[in-house]
Amino acid sequence: MEKEIIVALDAMGGDLAPVETVKGAVDAVKELGNVKIKLVGLEEAVKKELAKYSYPEGKIEVVPATEVISTDEVPTMAIRRKKDSSMVVGMQLVKKGEADAFVSAGSTGALLTGALLIVGRIPGVERPVLGTCLPTGRDFTFLVDSGANVDCKPKYLEQFAKMGAVYVENVFGKKNPSVALVNIGAEKEKGDTLTKEAYELLETSDLNFTGNIEPRNIPFGEADVVVCDGFVGNTILKFAEGLSKALVGIIKEEITKGAYKIPAAMLLKPFKKVKKSFDADEVGGAPFIGLKALVVKAHGSSNAKAFKNAIRQCVLFTEADIVGKIQDKL
Amino acid sequence: MEKEIIVALDAMGGDLAPVETVKGAVDAVKELGNVKIKLVGLEEAVKKELAKYSYPEGKIEVVPATEVISTDEVPTMAIRRKKDSSMVVGMQLVKKGEADAFVSAGSTGALLTGALLIVGRIPGVERPVLGTCLPTGRDFTFLVDSGANVDCKPKYLEQFAKMGAVYVENVFGKKNPSVALVNIGAEKEKGDTLTKEAYELLETSDLNFTGNIEPRNIPFGEADVVVCDGFVGNTILKFAEGLSKALVGIIKEEITKGAYKIPAAMLLKPFKKVKKSFDADEVGGAPFIGLKALVVKAHGSSNAKAFKNAIRQCVLFTEADIVGKIQDKL
Repeated sequence: MEKEIIVALDAMGGDLAPVETVKGAVDAVKELGNVKIKLVGLEEAVKKELAKYSYPEGKIEVVPATEVISTDEVPTMAIRRKKDSSMVVGMQLVKKGEADAFVSAGSTGALLTGALLIVGRIPGVERPVLGTCLPTGRDFTFLVDSGANVDCKPKYLEQFAKMGAVYVENVFGKKNPSVALVNIGAEKEKGDTLTKEAYELLETSDLNFTGNIEPRNIPFGEADVVVCDGFVGNTILKFAEGLSKALVGIIKEEITKGAYKIPAAMLLKPFKKVKKSFDADEVGGAPFIGLKALVVKAHGSSNAKAFKNAIRQCVLFTEADIVGKIQDKL
Repeated sequence: MEKEIIVALDAMGGDLAPVETVKGAVDAVKELGNVKIKLVGLEEAVKKELAKYSYPEGKIEVVPATEVISTDEVPTMAIRRKKDSSMVVGMQLVKKGEADAFVSAGSTGALLTGALLIVGRIPGVERPVLGTCLPTGRDFTFLVDSGANVDCKPKYLEQFAKMGAVYVENVFGKKNPSVALVNIGAEKEKGDTLTKEAYELLETSDLNFTGNIEPRNIPFGEADVVVCDGFVGNTILKFAEGLSKALVGIIKEEITKGAYKIPAAMLLKPFKKVKKSFDADEVGGAPFIGLKALVVKAHGSSNAKAFKNAIRQCVLFTEADIVGKIQDKL
């Protein structure tokens, strides 16, 4: 029998916790093979929620934590002071070898800070990177860095690309993934100092580097991995969120009003399908890659499906020994 | 009688030149009051096109140029070598005081380079800035810098904001326009070194500064002017273009296919209206601000309406003495 993967889940993280975190854990142990979940959080609340379900015995364990870090706390302060928070306790399990990976939908800042301090970087990794799957209709493109590191050096971008490629190949099963550099022009000599120097590094690496990608081509999935600094990546991610919302709103209004009068009811199903094709829950969260174990930042509004899929990422990551593969690659 | 404004128009610039450039010039002299157009380009081609129209006598003059700069030429080389190109000749007219402003839909790189070399900066302006109107459904937000300057200093961003505010107030008539800094977090302490330092400068300026704007809020028009470096601005601009196209494609497909089967014909009009609300031609181009005269970069696919509206920007800019107002503001 394969080694059982142990995933610690922050039962208190996210807008819908602990209802959806607990349900996600139950779904995960039922649907995924060799995984055990350690649900970390306020003992009474978590156990009460867990009592609603039946699941394979011994597959879920509740690990008590008496504090919760909220999203409006200053990350470093929160991690240092709330030693018995679900987030800190969960990452301590990973550090002590009592869990293989950690998932949380709590404060992004606190999670990234805590992951660096508690789980720690793989030796040789300059900066761990946050990767996010950007939907491209039927598929997705993997955006690194989607927000963990501002003020980057060219070398960081090269490492982001390598870690992203290893992740996409092993967790999402895309062989020899193509990698492109986000830039404001297609030609090699375009861009700012950072991208020009990063281009040189990527070009001479062993990656399947396809050159610059202009942002207008990102939504069409022209590369499996797109690399940029965390300021640009986070801008793309958040702008995509806002523009999609604005555009869908305007289109709905135009179609249903005035002279055209297509009944809004006729649009419910197709718009639901469009929404699904841009559904972040299908992936389950943004992996923070380059640490000694996987830490997944699930979206604040994650539901049970998102948590289950985040847990699935942890299982695939651990089984494929991505930490070892990243060490080899760098 | 008011002083007549003379606008030089690159008759050869853009995908639809000289047909649409000439028509735009004719529409402009018919519809706008006190403007005269100098159409710069290959004499025979421009005169042949112009012969199709009637227009107020003396309002359009053809200025011959024997060369054309193409979009695939290296900007600095093209500007230096093609002294008799429509772009260089047009900007020389401005330099010599024979025209008040210049409009071109030709190579962006060549235009920005030539504008700096030939038209020249207003003393005190560190870097002229490219401003683009980003549609927000019924209105727009003015994005500075939308692509002229990468590797920016905080001081540049402060100047971009000031020039953008003067432009929006005087050309688009928005009194005391609100200005926000594009950043990956709403709080003051968020962002990279550049945005943190720019925030300090903007906060203590005399602008109507409203703080950081997260990219997800840009499409909802929460600020009249949004400021960022040219790499981030150009990324937003190009990503918006691609994502809109991708999203509209997916929505159209979902609505018309399968079980829902809303006839595509029923959607033509509403989608046309959505397109119109995102129509760059309504504005007519991106002004390059901070030079001794206005230079407008019209989109490569500009039609007559776009050129007419670009010319209108030149008239408003010159009448309002924006060069003087920028000098006062900085």
